[in-house]
Amino acid sequence: MKVGIIMGSRSDLGVMEEAANVLKELGVDYELTVVSAHRTPERMFEYAKKAAQRGINVIIAGAGGAAHLPGMVASITSLPVIGVPIKSSNSIDGWDSILSILQMPNGIPVATVALNAAKNAGILAAQILAIADENIAKNVIKFKNDLKAKIVESAEDLKDEGYYSGF
Amino acid sequence: MKVGIIMGSRSDLGVMEEAANVLKELGVDYELTVVSAHRTPERMFEYAKKAAQRGINVIIAGAGGAAHLPGMVASITSLPVIGVPIKSSNSIDGWDSILSILQMPNGIPVATVALNAAKNAGILAAQILAIADENIAKNVIKFKNDLKAKIVESAEDLKDEGYYSGF
Amino acid sequence: MKVGIIMGSRSDLGVMEEAANVLKELGVDYELTVVSAHRTPERMFEYAKKAAQRGINVIIAGAGGAAHLPGMVASITSLPVIGVPIKSSNSIDGWDSILSILQMPNGIPVATVALNAAKNAGILAAQILAIADENIAKNVIKFKNDLKAKIVESAEDLKDEGYYSGF
Amino acid sequence: MKVGIIMGSRSDLGVMEEAANVLKELGVDYELTVVSAHRTPERMFEYAKKAAQRGINVIIAGAGGAAHLPGMVASITSLPVIGVPIKSSNSIDGWDSILSILQMPNGIPVATVALNAAKNAGILAAQILAIADENIAKNVIKFKNDLKAKIVESAEDLKDEGYYSGF
Amino acid sequence: MKVGIIMGSRSDLGVMEEAANVLKELGVDYELTVVSAHRTPERMFEYAKKAAQRGINVIIAGAGGAAHLPGMVASITSLPVIGVPIKSSNSIDGWDSILSILQMPNGIPVATVALNAAKNAGILAAQILAIADENIAKNVIKFKNDLKAKIVESAEDLKDEGYYSGF
Amino acid sequence: MKVGIIMGSRSDLGVMEEAANVLKELGVDYELTVVSAHRTPERMFEYAKKAAQRGINVIIAGAGGAAHLPGMVASITSLPVIGVPIKSSNSIDGWDSILSILQMPNGIPVATVALNAAKNAGILAAQILAIADENIAKNVIKFKNDLKAKIVESAEDLKDEGYYSGF
Amino acid sequence: MKVGIIMGSRSDLGVMEEAANVLKELGVDYELTVVSAHRTPERMFEYAKKAAQRGINVIIAGAGGAAHLPGMVASITSLPVIGVPIKSSNSIDGWDSILSILQMPNGIPVATVALNAAKNAGILAAQILAIADENIAKNVIKFKNDLKAKIVESAEDLKDEGYYSGF
Amino acid sequence: MKVGIIMGSRSDLGVMEEAANVLKELGVDYELTVVSAHRTPERMFEYAKKAAQRGINVIIAGAGGAAHLPGMVASITSLPVIGVPIKSSNSIDGWDSILSILQMPNGIPVATVALNAAKNAGILAAQILAIADENIAKNVIKFKNDLKAKIVESAEDLKDEGYYSGF
Repeated sequence: MKVGIIMGSRSDLGVMEEAANVLKELGVDYELTVVSAHRTPERMFEYAKKAAQRGINVIIAGAGGAAHLPGMVASITSLPVIGVPIKSSNSIDGWDSILSILQMPNGIPVATVALNAAKNAGILAAQILAIADENIAKNVIKFKNDLKAKIVESAEDLKDEGYYSGF
Repeated sequence: MKVGIIMGSRSDLGVMEEAANVLKELGVDYELTVVSAHRTPERMFEYAKKAAQRGINVIIAGAGGAAHLPGMVASITSLPVIGVPIKSSNSIDGWDSILSILQMPNGIPVATVALNAAKNAGILAAQILAIADENIAKNVIKFKNDLKAKIVESAEDLKDEGYYSGF
Repeated sequence: MKVGIIMGSRSDLGVMEEAANVLKELGVDYELTVVSAHRTPERMFEYAKKAAQRGINVIIAGAGGAAHLPGMVASITSLPVIGVPIKSSNSIDGWDSILSILQMPNGIPVATVALNAAKNAGILAAQILAIADENIAKNVIKFKNDLKAKIVESAEDLKDEGYYSGF
Repeated sequence: MKVGIIMGSRSDLGVMEEAANVLKELGVDYELTVVSAHRTPERMFEYAKKAAQRGINVIIAGAGGAAHLPGMVASITSLPVIGVPIKSSNSIDGWDSILSILQMPNGIPVATVALNAAKNAGILAAQILAIADENIAKNVIKFKNDLKAKIVESAEDLKDEGYYSGF
Repeated sequence: MKVGIIMGSRSDLGVMEEAANVLKELGVDYELTVVSAHRTPERMFEYAKKAAQRGINVIIAGAGGAAHLPGMVASITSLPVIGVPIKSSNSIDGWDSILSILQMPNGIPVATVALNAAKNAGILAAQILAIADENIAKNVIKFKNDLKAKIVESAEDLKDEGYYSGF
Repeated sequence: MKVGIIMGSRSDLGVMEEAANVLKELGVDYELTVVSAHRTPERMFEYAKKAAQRGINVIIAGAGGAAHLPGMVASITSLPVIGVPIKSSNSIDGWDSILSILQMPNGIPVATVALNAAKNAGILAAQILAIADENIAKNVIKFKNDLKAKIVESAEDLKDEGYYSGF
Repeated sequence: MKVGIIMGSRSDLGVMEEAANVLKELGVDYELTVVSAHRTPERMFEYAKKAAQRGINVIIAGAGGAAHLPGMVASITSLPVIGVPIKSSNSIDGWDSILSILQMPNGIPVATVALNAAKNAGILAAQILAIADENIAKNVIKFKNDLKAKIVESAEDLKDEGYYSGF
Repeated sequence: MKVGIIMGSRSDLGVMEEAANVLKELGVDYELTVVSAHRTPERMFEYAKKAAQRGINVIIAGAGGAAHLPGMVASITSLPVIGVPIKSSNSIDGWDSILSILQMPNGIPVATVALNAAKNAGILAAQILAIADENIAKNVIKFKNDLKAKIVESAEDLKDEGYYSGF
């Protein structure tokens, strides 16, 4: 069980690395590379074509501006593809990235997450693999419980700092 | 392996039924009901809480306007949740539905598909289950091949109607 | 008579504290804590469920991005809920926060104020409580008169700085 | 305890009447008239100035386009003002109505509800008055329970129509 | 012949002063003060009511966010009112300011200029007064010729810096 | 004293005729023709160049889509130019028309009115000419009083139809 | 010299046929077919790869929603590619189509025309080929002169219908 | 074969120079100057009128805000015009620049590239001239191959930095 993380440009690494980090935390294998739909269309084609046979189960693809990478990969492979819209320097406040990833035609879905939300892409990939892998399932449940604990803790912190709450 | 389809209102059935139809076509079990985050918060809570133990593997949730159903269900369950933004009568051209489903905070992803794209939500659910079920995997691949065939056919039709193309 | 102030994340405190400060200025009791719809759904449920019996009369809820906290609290309690859309780091210029708080379906209103306008949320809460509390009513009227005085003063300042006005 | 409903133009009655209807259903007294900020500024001024002394406790103001009525009334009275953005014929998909009602400066809040959501404005007014009136409080709780019942009923209907759900 | 410049807040002076400066350059009398529609509605009313009899011929009003000042002044006076949308700190990228000034209903126009374009508001006021004042007319024509000269000059500069152009 | 009304296409006449009609009502001379910035640039140039010497005092220019007519005419003449953004069939909900008329650079203002608001353009032209013509001034004041009367009348109508108002 | 017209779906023919029609009118050879980036990625790849050697000089590609066809074809061929954003049924008012065609990254331009403006795509293709073909150049000039004549004619029509203009 | 680069203001040089640089890199002759549609309409007219006879084959025009330069030049010349929307200081996040360049009416296309994408404008101009010039054609193909090489190289770099990829 492995996740393939790709991004349209080396400059997207700062955002996309969060997907890798959370997958590591959740005990999920992954690999990561640069594949550009526009600058290396053949490489993109080959990557998508061979992903399943190379043992990849879910693809996470991040891109900005007219972001075609997630949708094009989804058109070539039958694996589930998670798209991460990136607010890159050539993006109009992220709207172009979001709409060109999200608004795929009937037949070719891309599982789109929030702007720059590579971390959520990683968690979603883990939730998908958890259907067939109990260890990942346990890690995801633990991860969500930790999120809860942090909120409750920050509520306690506020009390310690003198903010009153009867709750 | 089963998909749970829920929607915020009976009036969303026209859109959400396409998810059911494509799942049937792809040989995937599903169930379908109405669960409103805003009008029946306890029912929503219970649905999300019990989904995994009732044998559901993926949830497809559709809602319009300030669409909280997909995100709230995702906050309660650890299953992957696919969100379908619906351009309902109380929606501003669909922007409110899209943004309130897509823009989830770190930790709680929703796999968002295009506006009204319940069919793509169904296909995505099948792609996810295909990781652990070879029959579904075969059906998904066949489905994509059929899409191709239809495009090639419509290109041939254009030639028959007298549009010239050397390709 | 008491106002409950909640926010989805500790990082919203910088904005939401303005609600607390203006309530103090207007002589209104309040309490303040962190409650996340997405990371602590049970805590959110319990908070909303018990608010009235704990003596809270109005709830002010602030959140950013896919901001479900105000709407979900409003779906569980019958108290008036004031929503503060926050332009947090994971928000698209605030549009997502605004639309996911404002566009509630029929039956479940959220009294939405301007982006980041926690101060106005506090004033609105005071105006609501002023219906049943004469002291708060007097404080609100005094508060509005002070606003006027500051504008008139700044107009006088401009004259002193040499800007001519016959008015 | 009385609610004053005003609208910028007779043509807004189709939308604003829903506020009146739900107030009647919830047992709340109201009155309704036409007051235009732009065409009858003196009338608007006088309405806002005298509302409290005439026994009005909450004002619901609906307007479309550059919708100044809710904000201007809020600037003159100290009563809570609920604003209803209306998608009138001179509105750009409702964005102008929403932004000119919602984005009030610090000091002068308007409790904004969803586009065309006069019904929610009525419910919100009732929730506000319920703080000081137990009968209205009971009616609001009953109203919310009825909403729930309708959703559960429509879920049962789907089963009767042959949609399977184990929930 | 005189222009009255008003703004909703002292903090708008940095933008609105450009109107004053260009009017001085064009030989047009003006006065300038702070008038807030929301914080000093009576002052705003009185300003608009008395403007004509105090010898003002054109009003320039600047405001940000839910910007009601230009439209409300236009509703009270019969003088032409020029509105300057300001991208103030409480504005959503200026969209709220623009729409709440521009989208006035039939009967009450506001002559809206570009976001923050107080300078253009001053020029427009001068063009309006130029209809009845030949000196102002001459100054406006000279002003436009100077604009041309600066462009031609910057084209020459580019040549001097080594950019080739046969034009 | 005369107003020149121009439009980019014959198909804009339905909207732009309202400017002519209100000018007639207000006793202002006008002429009306078709001038396209894009299809007849020389004609546009000549129109703008000769407008003042032909006795025109204010120009009203309406256009849709990438609407360059008002701004280009304003760049050539020194007369005040009123721009009417038109939601024509080739416009994206009117946003393109509004932004390409409103957002003129410093030095070249266009007095922009609301989308399709040719009537307001006519009223604004009359308000401008009223500075130098007492008859037009009287007509404008009467026009505004008639607007008031209609609102008060519709408020009375509502009472007659059984809507209660103590105001 | 030949233009290749492609579209993502048979349902785009109503829009894209206008490109064919105007090319015929301008004396430019063309061919037309259906190529879907998402449903037939290999066909798209092959089309783009072979276009130049098959004698095509300019490609016009139309698509709606997440419109990847123009950009992907531009990434594979070195020919100039003209993109036509289509407001198809699965598009959000055309914004998604425009942004996913227009916002291409550095290195891979797409010459984007207005929403649904297939006619302009045809004219632009002719203008491009006119650089190397005098007959096409003559036809383009004649086409533009005809546009002018129609505007002048419609101005004359208005006079005949009784609209006065001294111009 | 020559490209004419023009911009509305000297301040656009930082963006537009990228068009010049890439044309130099691709072996294409160009000239560059400042021409403002709004401040120097006669100069703009003359530039467009004489461009073809001065030996220019393609015009690249950049402008921000209400950006009329590309469209007006396209209305006067029959040469292909490439428009570069610039996010200048007087632009609303670039939306005004994009829409006023892109949304040209039928008959007068502008080949629009992405926001600030002057480099892509230069590449597009080269692709257009490559139809009639084999050397430019070779340079364009080499340029695209270099883009590919850089992506592949950055993928190798990631491996060297320890990111695993089996691809």
